Amino acid sequence: MQRILSHQLSAHVGEDVRIAGWVHRRRLLKSVAFLIVRDSAGLAQVVVTDPAVRAELGELGEETVVEVSGTVVANPTAPAGVELTAPTVRPLGPPAVSPPFDLYRPALTASLPTQLDHASVALRHPTRAAALRVSAAAVAGFRAALDARDFVEIHTPKVVGSSTESGANVFALDWFGRPAYLAQSPQFYKQLMVGVFERVYEVGPVFRAEPHDTVRHLAQYTSLDAELGFVADHRDVMVVLRDTLAGMLGSVTERAGAALATLGVTAPEVPAEIPAVHFTEALGIAGAPADEPDLAPAHERALGEWARREHGSEFLFVTGYPMAKRPFYTHPDPARPAYSNGFDLLFRGLELVTGGQRLHRHADYLAALAARGEPVEPYAGYVDAFRHGMPPHGGFAIGLERFVARLTGATNVREVTAFPRDLHRLTP
Amino acid sequence: MQRILSHQLSAHVGEDVRIAGWVHRRRLLKSVAFLIVRDSAGLAQVVVTDPAVRAELGELGEETVVEVSGTVVANPTAPAGVELTAPTVRPLGPPAVSPPFDLYRPALTASLPTQLDHASVALRHPTRAAALRVSAAAVAGFRAALDARDFVEIHTPKVVGSSTESGANVFALDWFGRPAYLAQSPQFYKQLMVGVFERVYEVGPVFRAEPHDTVRHLAQYTSLDAELGFVADHRDVMVVLRDTLAGMLGSVTERAGAALATLGVTAPEVPAEIPAVHFTEALGIAGAPADEPDLAPAHERALGEWARREHGSEFLFVTGYPMAKRPFYTHPDPARPAYSNGFDLLFRGLELVTGGQRLHRHADYLAALAARGEPVEPYAGYVDAFRHGMPPHGGFAIGLERFVARLTGATNVREVTAFPRDLHRLTP
Repeated sequence: MQRILSHQLSAHVGEDVRIAGWVHRRRLLKSVAFLIVRDSAGLAQVVVTDPAVRAELGELGEETVVEVSGTVVANPTAPAGVELTAPTVRPLGPPAVSPPFDLYRPALTASLPTQLDHASVALRHPTRAAALRVSAAAVAGFRAALDARDFVEIHTPKVVGSSTESGANVFALDWFGRPAYLAQSPQFYKQLMVGVFERVYEVGPVFRAEPHDTVRHLAQYTSLDAELGFVADHRDVMVVLRDTLAGMLGSVTERAGAALATLGVTAPEVPAEIPAVHFTEALGIAGAPADEPDLAPAHERALGEWARREHGSEFLFVTGYPMAKRPFYTHPDPARPAYSNGFDLLFRGLELVTGGQRLHRHADYLAALAARGEPVEPYAGYVDAFRHGMPPHGGFAIGLERFVARLTGATNVREVTAFPRDLHRLTP
Repeated sequence: MQRILSHQLSAHVGEDVRIAGWVHRRRLLKSVAFLIVRDSAGLAQVVVTDPAVRAELGELGEETVVEVSGTVVANPTAPAGVELTAPTVRPLGPPAVSPPFDLYRPALTASLPTQLDHASVALRHPTRAAALRVSAAAVAGFRAALDARDFVEIHTPKVVGSSTESGANVFALDWFGRPAYLAQSPQFYKQLMVGVFERVYEVGPVFRAEPHDTVRHLAQYTSLDAELGFVADHRDVMVVLRDTLAGMLGSVTERAGAALATLGVTAPEVPAEIPAVHFTEALGIAGAPADEPDLAPAHERALGEWARREHGSEFLFVTGYPMAKRPFYTHPDPARPAYSNGFDLLFRGLELVTGGQRLHRHADYLAALAARGEPVEPYAGYVDAFRHGMPPHGGFAIGLERFVARLTGATNVREVTAFPRDLHRLTP
């Protein structure tokens, strides 16, 4: 008999079926026992009246993997309107040791560190699993949106010969006796690949040796990177980003609707045109001094509230960040060269995406590095490529864990990361 | 005027259009000049008769990025049956420095090391770019096949606290003052995630400090990993692998048909049931001694020829490898415990996939490690999870670069890798 999943039971009323999964909960009452079996599709209720089966059940602790055969009976008071009766229960392994917290309660009561220490079982809790399903759906939507716009997926090195972006916050390693570093982003590679495919994206790990222990930083996170050529300026990039976000949220709703329901959240609308304010205006809105060089988290929160109030939007672009605060490859605003053609996207008052137009002329790279007093040599393999013809281009990077945390209302990115890595955590 | 791509020209005969791309080639004849522009869709021929435009063209070396406006005219002798006439040519950047090899010749004549040293331009050659398009299509097919079978995509740590799989061939790094290692595979994590989602996959980088300089090893490669629970044994895994391969090749044909044509190859058929031979039979077919513990590359080649000859198949499963040659988490064949429920898949006589059924009982892990004289402690976070109920499960890992190399006929995996990493190469 072919195994069926829990959500298929209602289509088999009156039939004998076989299900399999984990012992999610047992309730041993006087004359009857209820066994809740959890599988990848949800929960199934099994009603046990046979004393022999009931006795077996007593030995099978929560999380034991079992196979249950029985007859499907409609019961409006059962969780999904059906239950399995007259069951035989066969363990598919030894009785499980119960996890250090109850997985059958509506919420995990264990502290986050305890959950993370026991991630392989904590993630079985429906709320933790739901967040990861949302994550998978978001990534699928990211790719589908870009595939539809003729982007090509790439895979680039995660180990590099010289530290990129900035000298700080890099992990050093030994590469066959040579010093090397974990890549902080695929920035340089995705730009080079614009020269090959015009439009590229990459989904992959990036590494930041963040010495801060905060709720929004991880030392490894999944970066959703895109880069496109033949743009007029950063606004062409913002249009693609808007459509990509809409695709991600559409995919979450479509592919992970049940997970959203488990978490009690709905995906927000992405406006056809996301409101955008220039950095100088943003300072005023946030009540920050006009000479502030960057936006602090409190400013971002104030801007998020403003966007919701004034534009009914959960999203807000802040454009024209000062050049001094952006990386050297950032393209300046030709009309106001102290400001950049770079932007951030705030999602509910939190920086979620950084992007912008990049320099595309070799001479501009040399000048930008010289202006910052940085040598060209560590960047040679990257900068030299711009001698061979690169179109005006730009791109963006979305932090997956931040996106999912913000969407699901998780206060800590670790709640939506399967096995987080940070200052303190290297296992499991 | 909206830019169009080269492959759209034939739909615009008689109209004025704008294209943009790279100066692929110039042919300056006596009374006429031909400019071939390369964009992401292919090549476009531009005919220049105006002496002023022709003079401009003389300054724009190969790979300069240009925008060309002109009138589309049908010309059966032109490459795509159309050409652009009466053009104006506007460079979108400074004149390019020509690459150290000609990109317009049918094949790159530079040595592979030279190509790799100048990867950002070498990859612009239609054949190199085509291989990467095949790669992207293959990965899309991998995901689509597994999505359709209810697998959930995961992202797991690439830095781990203890070396996995084997003590050798790991890259060590400094993690905030603690020793850590680059992950050699997501093996342990994907198994743990079977406990959460039953079926999972991951596409991501893996790292092997391979001290060998061979045509089929990279120190970083892209691993296509899948793992599924509630299997009877390894044969259930082989069925999913077969369907996944069919999905990958179908996707390559559908999404990268032009790239296959550029490379002059077609995707092979995957038989409805891929032929399978037990390891002990395989030795006989390959003419190897019956006490040989593993298959050498020459044996694999002989088996590949046999599969093609006897079964008309480019693919061959070899099952039942000796336990002594498989990792400790491998499930033995219950009927012949010296042999495993592990398999390799050969593609055209090269090992492409390794997979099998894994142990799922905690006690079996302890026994397997003890039998190998390995301590449990480095594996504790992994092995402990098996105390909490894991179903019988198995999975496989496909090496993306090997798959693409074998499919496209590349003799060296570096030819189908954008920026390879190996014993000698850490840049670009």
